[in-house]
Amino acid sequence: MPTAETELLRQMFQAAVNAALPAQCVPPHLPVPPRGRTVVVGAGKAAAAMAAAVDRDWPPDRPLTGLVVTRYRHAVGPLDRIEVVEAAHPVPDDAGQRAAARILDLVQGLTADDLVLCLISGGASALLALPAPGVEFAAKQAINRALLRSGASIHEMNCVRKHLSAIKGGRLAAAAAPARLVTLMISDVPGDDASVIGSGPTVPDATTIEQARDVVARYRIAVPATVAALWRDPAAETPKPGHPAFRNAHAVLVATPYLALAAAAGVARKAGIAPLILGDAIEGEAAEAARVLAGIALSCARHNQPAAPPCVLISGGETTVTVRGGGRGGRNAEFLLALALALDGHGAIHAIAADTDGIDGTEDNAGAVLTPSTLSRARAMGLDPRAHLADNDGYSVFERLGDLVITGPTRTNVNDFRAILVRGGPRG
Amino acid sequence: MPTAETELLRQMFQAAVNAALPAQCVPPHLPVPPRGRTVVVGAGKAAAAMAAAVDRDWPPDRPLTGLVVTRYRHAVGPLDRIEVVEAAHPVPDDAGQRAAARILDLVQGLTADDLVLCLISGGASALLALPAPGVEFAAKQAINRALLRSGASIHEMNCVRKHLSAIKGGRLAAAAAPARLVTLMISDVPGDDASVIGSGPTVPDATTIEQARDVVARYRIAVPATVAALWRDPAAETPKPGHPAFRNAHAVLVATPYLALAAAAGVARKAGIAPLILGDAIEGEAAEAARVLAGIALSCARHNQPAAPPCVLISGGETTVTVRGGGRGGRNAEFLLALALALDGHGAIHAIAADTDGIDGTEDNAGAVLTPSTLSRARAMGLDPRAHLADNDGYSVFERLGDLVITGPTRTNVNDFRAILVRGGPRG
Repeated sequence: MPTAETELLRQMFQAAVNAALPAQCVPPHLPVPPRGRTVVVGAGKAAAAMAAAVDRDWPPDRPLTGLVVTRYRHAVGPLDRIEVVEAAHPVPDDAGQRAAARILDLVQGLTADDLVLCLISGGASALLALPAPGVEFAAKQAINRALLRSGASIHEMNCVRKHLSAIKGGRLAAAAAPARLVTLMISDVPGDDASVIGSGPTVPDATTIEQARDVVARYRIAVPATVAALWRDPAAETPKPGHPAFRNAHAVLVATPYLALAAAAGVARKAGIAPLILGDAIEGEAAEAARVLAGIALSCARHNQPAAPPCVLISGGETTVTVRGGGRGGRNAEFLLALALALDGHGAIHAIAADTDGIDGTEDNAGAVLTPSTLSRARAMGLDPRAHLADNDGYSVFERLGDLVITGPTRTNVNDFRAILVRGGPRG
Repeated sequence: MPTAETELLRQMFQAAVNAALPAQCVPPHLPVPPRGRTVVVGAGKAAAAMAAAVDRDWPPDRPLTGLVVTRYRHAVGPLDRIEVVEAAHPVPDDAGQRAAARILDLVQGLTADDLVLCLISGGASALLALPAPGVEFAAKQAINRALLRSGASIHEMNCVRKHLSAIKGGRLAAAAAPARLVTLMISDVPGDDASVIGSGPTVPDATTIEQARDVVARYRIAVPATVAALWRDPAAETPKPGHPAFRNAHAVLVATPYLALAAAAGVARKAGIAPLILGDAIEGEAAEAARVLAGIALSCARHNQPAAPPCVLISGGETTVTVRGGGRGGRNAEFLLALALALDGHGAIHAIAADTDGIDGTEDNAGAVLTPSTLSRARAMGLDPRAHLADNDGYSVFERLGDLVITGPTRTNVNDFRAILVRGGPRG
């Protein structure tokens, strides 16, 4: 049910996505072409769109070649000067391995007059999954699966992953030296740490083999003899800060979750609505995060704190859904249905929750919108919102209501976008 | 480990509690003594302390009698002019029933020259559990248990409860008429709705017998013949807004969760720390709420949004803990341990979480404090914070660290108090 409020919320979401679209965020950061050759490499959900922006804007008279790898169905093109291949995400496949090996080959033998332009975005880690020499692909996969089950933190997992890889943790930079290296990054990680985005193939790695060994010991993860042998070889250590490979290298964040939220805040401000950005890395179980954010929105309505209506609470980051039911829908539909139940039809509150990559979970929608009448309209159709939430079936509710947000794949990703609009004046 | 930051946070908590202490918040709202008699009645965790404040400040030459019921171990006194009895909470017992019946007797036969001063605080609903005439105590209890399991909303549960009671939903006001009626309330409910606090014995009830019937039908809750008979009797309806019983009645909120948070905000402001109140009714699973609030605090540190450091994020309300382990600790210890894990030792962030009633769950502490070194100190003692969280064992961690907040029962309750302090300057 489109209203002035949901239209504004959709415009805010579109502004957030636009701020992260490679066609918009890459060109301002393109380096000056070098004297020698330019080789474009890269990986991630946005890699093809980033390469397209480079291909379009790079001076036609300056040499440009390259190869980037993106997720299946995320390619654009074909491009004139850069090859785009597709591979599997989030579980790596052979296509990704082959692309990673070719990328390492492409950057060999360059000189200090040449430029390597590396395009990294979310998903790069899985798409560039090349095991270190001597390590079997299956062994690397088994350790990765064990890590995911172990309760290890993302920092601990990345430390191990970097020490099992032929390309991560700064090794791509080592391969590209002595060429000049510029990395353009679209961040989808909390804190926007360049060594974490795509497991940092072109930035120094401060973690060590010893720490990797500690992590697998702490979580009792078995490592095969090939990995144990690798970790006895000092040459297997990742390049550290100060390593000569980084002497002629720098990395630029061209899009981040926060910049996307700030773009959406600008749209709200122009419409006379006070934006309050709660954070770009809000995590937690989607339905529980919804209850907390509902409490904050209700406080705005009741107490003018943390912001006085008309205001909009903006947040990013990735919530999670512990799947208990058999329904349809991603974390944004789950969040929004739980939000509707927590707000219980409050007349002044509208909301949107959508994934900036355009795909909420595995459905065809990016997200959905909520209005004061979400629950009452659903119940009038005979739906039981609480039962749908218990079945993780948010999609079905918002589909029936005609309140899905559908964009198709945006070919970029700065995580989820959520905005809760609290109208001023008497409660409607 | 006391630091300047944890000392400030403890002072903020103390200010929040003080704002809700009956000795402080009751006297400013005492009415002018009437020409006739004054009868004090009331119930709740704060009832004895509220009665003590009345007893102390009521003019010695003006007649004052009365009876209030509080939770076991919450009595103070004996008082000179008001009887205090104790009863069971949260599951009602005979002592509470007898007290409710005596309270209804006490307010009978008064005239318009007399005053009934009713003191209501959290817990009053269980402490004044008197079934409507003809309904067995056991039947009322069975319906209540079924409601709690049913998934019914708090509004739906209260609607049924009021229509099974001899005293709730405005019936005490009806009994007290034509006396003048002043109700002083300490709120522990989201939204501070007077008809919800203690199930509103002295305020009009807008819900109906028909709605109560709908709720039990919707959740397939069996009602015995006595209840069915009661609900066929129009005289069993609760007094509605406009009912003559309320002609000479009014209710005052003397303390609320929000006022307590605002008092704590004042302490922060004086110390040069910008307070941001996120809400007085933050709900959700404690550990998940911690992850969300961690994301907001980290956003302050990284992006100066929603507030620029030095700042403190203040919130109230009651989180919940789905018990999965066998450890010790209430929802505040659980919240704080999950917060420590989500913040992962961030050098600029300290926090407190504590229950304003002085008791976090069933332990002897009100809550605990968190410092940047919480995790590292715990690990240095051989504790595994993640394992303790999985075992719902936050208390043990903060006890070992010497970081419990212990106040003893405060004899008031405006729910939980949480404050997350983000220091300015470089990350420590």
